Amino acid sequence: MTVNNPPSEYALPHLRELSGYTPGFQPGESGWVKLNTNENPYPPSPAVDEALRAAAGDALRLYPDPRSSALREQAAKLHALDVSQVIFGNGSDDLLNLLVRAFSGERAVGYPAPSYSLYPVLCGIQNSDAIEIPFGREMALPIEAIGKLEASILFVTSPNAPTGVGFANSDLAKAIEAFEGIVVVDEAYADFAEESAVELLGRYSNLVVTRTFSKSYGLAGLRLGYAMGDASVIDILDRVRDSYNVNRLTQAGGLAALCDQSYLSAVVEKIKRTRDFYRAEWEGLGWFCYPSRANFLFVEPRNAQGESGPEVAQGLFEYLKRSRILVRYFPSNPLTRSFLRISVGDEDQMLFVSETMQKWLKNA
Amino acid sequence: MTVNNPPSEYALPHLRELSGYTPGFQPGESGWVKLNTNENPYPPSPAVDEALRAAAGDALRLYPDPRSSALREQAAKLHALDVSQVIFGNGSDDLLNLLVRAFSGERAVGYPAPSYSLYPVLCGIQNSDAIEIPFGREMALPIEAIGKLEASILFVTSPNAPTGVGFANSDLAKAIEAFEGIVVVDEAYADFAEESAVELLGRYSNLVVTRTFSKSYGLAGLRLGYAMGDASVIDILDRVRDSYNVNRLTQAGGLAALCDQSYLSAVVEKIKRTRDFYRAEWEGLGWFCYPSRANFLFVEPRNAQGESGPEVAQGLFEYLKRSRILVRYFPSNPLTRSFLRISVGDEDQMLFVSETMQKWLKNA
Repeated sequence: MTVNNPPSEYALPHLRELSGYTPGFQPGESGWVKLNTNENPYPPSPAVDEALRAAAGDALRLYPDPRSSALREQAAKLHALDVSQVIFGNGSDDLLNLLVRAFSGERAVGYPAPSYSLYPVLCGIQNSDAIEIPFGREMALPIEAIGKLEASILFVTSPNAPTGVGFANSDLAKAIEAFEGIVVVDEAYADFAEESAVELLGRYSNLVVTRTFSKSYGLAGLRLGYAMGDASVIDILDRVRDSYNVNRLTQAGGLAALCDQSYLSAVVEKIKRTRDFYRAEWEGLGWFCYPSRANFLFVEPRNAQGESGPEVAQGLFEYLKRSRILVRYFPSNPLTRSFLRISVGDEDQMLFVSETMQKWLKNA
Repeated sequence: MTVNNPPSEYALPHLRELSGYTPGFQPGESGWVKLNTNENPYPPSPAVDEALRAAAGDALRLYPDPRSSALREQAAKLHALDVSQVIFGNGSDDLLNLLVRAFSGERAVGYPAPSYSLYPVLCGIQNSDAIEIPFGREMALPIEAIGKLEASILFVTSPNAPTGVGFANSDLAKAIEAFEGIVVVDEAYADFAEESAVELLGRYSNLVVTRTFSKSYGLAGLRLGYAMGDASVIDILDRVRDSYNVNRLTQAGGLAALCDQSYLSAVVEKIKRTRDFYRAEWEGLGWFCYPSRANFLFVEPRNAQGESGPEVAQGLFEYLKRSRILVRYFPSNPLTRSFLRISVGDEDQMLFVSETMQKWLKNA
């Protein structure tokens, strides 16, 4: 071997300069109001802890069910699908990654932008071109541009991140009809929305819909997500996935959460009320805020002089951070750099955010 | 879109006919003596359950530490490495998969065979050629053939599966020196062995050593493994992995297990004693059994007439199964088809296996 070269030179050339995904900042110590990664402010269903206790202990010696069968059956029942149309992964990110790996090769992948910043990272790993289709300021689905897209996969986050804007199924249907390839509607936030593309699965066999337990179910720490689609697509993902991708505790805890739909609804309703209240409040300040169908608000702050823009947004971001409030700022896109994305916290957290904004307004 | 074609036709051509990995049979009901997947017969350290309880509840709302930092630090300390030389994954299978994805592309991958049946599956997913270097019956590392291998990665399972044979570091060093590319020594069973290739990491920067929590730590259900190697190789794997690949509970439980090395040693010693006792017993019957450095025995049974061979092995496999004992039979390779791989269970299980073999001998 050539001992003088670093062994990373054996890696595929496109990986040597690759930038990995940048997760939202996770503070090591407590005392932060953490509204930067769209986590749920409320704990998961109490049934989860009970299920985890029952699944722990001696049984951890044994491999998990490689198919996550109980989860597949329950999700199929919930969405009125056949069990062959559902697959579970180690977070929905696991499934997005498998979709790119199995369906793009080195062909391009497209998505309206701004959107989930993981998509270009997955393309980078696979050495696929990432084609961004720019949204306009109104954030309508760019259906005409989608019709001209030459790509193997189209990702649409709906409701979108970081804007929170939800797309009507009628628009999604037009996009699916306009595109030749696999359409992945990433529904990480769908439980907070009014419509779901799951209803379109019967009409479009090239449609895949993904869901996560990280947001509405309050289980970001457990890593669980699923994908729904045509049985032939799910079968491909099944062959490419790791055979024990979901561990025993996540299967048990996730199943308990999935079965407790009344708890889910109560939490979701609470978050939606808080969300809509604060959107109205910030609009009352004259701040533009997209109508959100997710568990966060994307808001364009104005300072005391009525000015908005990147400096204002970044100034508020830093002011909030000094007050131990973490939100997310995306400076790299003209459509996002005057905005802040603020996850919907509980009542106390949101009141503190609002009071801190008032203080900032007085000082700015 | 072409609605008449199944959407799986959008998948990469090499995936359409791919066979996934076949995990060992997981019986749905209890009452089986399960010695087919090399699980640990003893429960994990009691510290694991305690750590899991502390990590559950409200904290599951939050994403896990994306770097599994506490695990990396503890493993680095255990093996006297720098923390930059360690990466954790969702089982060591996750890391083996990342190694193939990052370092093979569509170049070939080689490994002595018989070995872990996941390697050809990972090659199939990546569309890499899988080059099997046949062992001889004596199961010595085929160093000369490794020197002629043209491949991007060489996998060596040490101790090997399904034979249990351990390779001396002096032989591994020769293999590493003979091969141009990344050498992965898969040490799933190393805690049951006498030597570890970790000692070679300082000498060979192209060496990667992987470990799992599924065997010696008794945590197959938790999915945790790690890889050790040159910091530049670990850095590549870090960019290609999922950013939240190890969930909160697995990080907490795995750390507790890793910190309880005295429990680990006690369990490992117990299993080694049982292993060596039954190897001697079966050799006393005139059955050949490879000297095992793992938590299983690979034995060539003989019937009452003193005959061995595929029919005899399969006959015993089925007799054991009718007695509710699951072991593993690998009929596809001439070097394995006269053997059974029997995981080392606890004393009661092994006594029952031995008694059942005696009954079979009387009836065969």
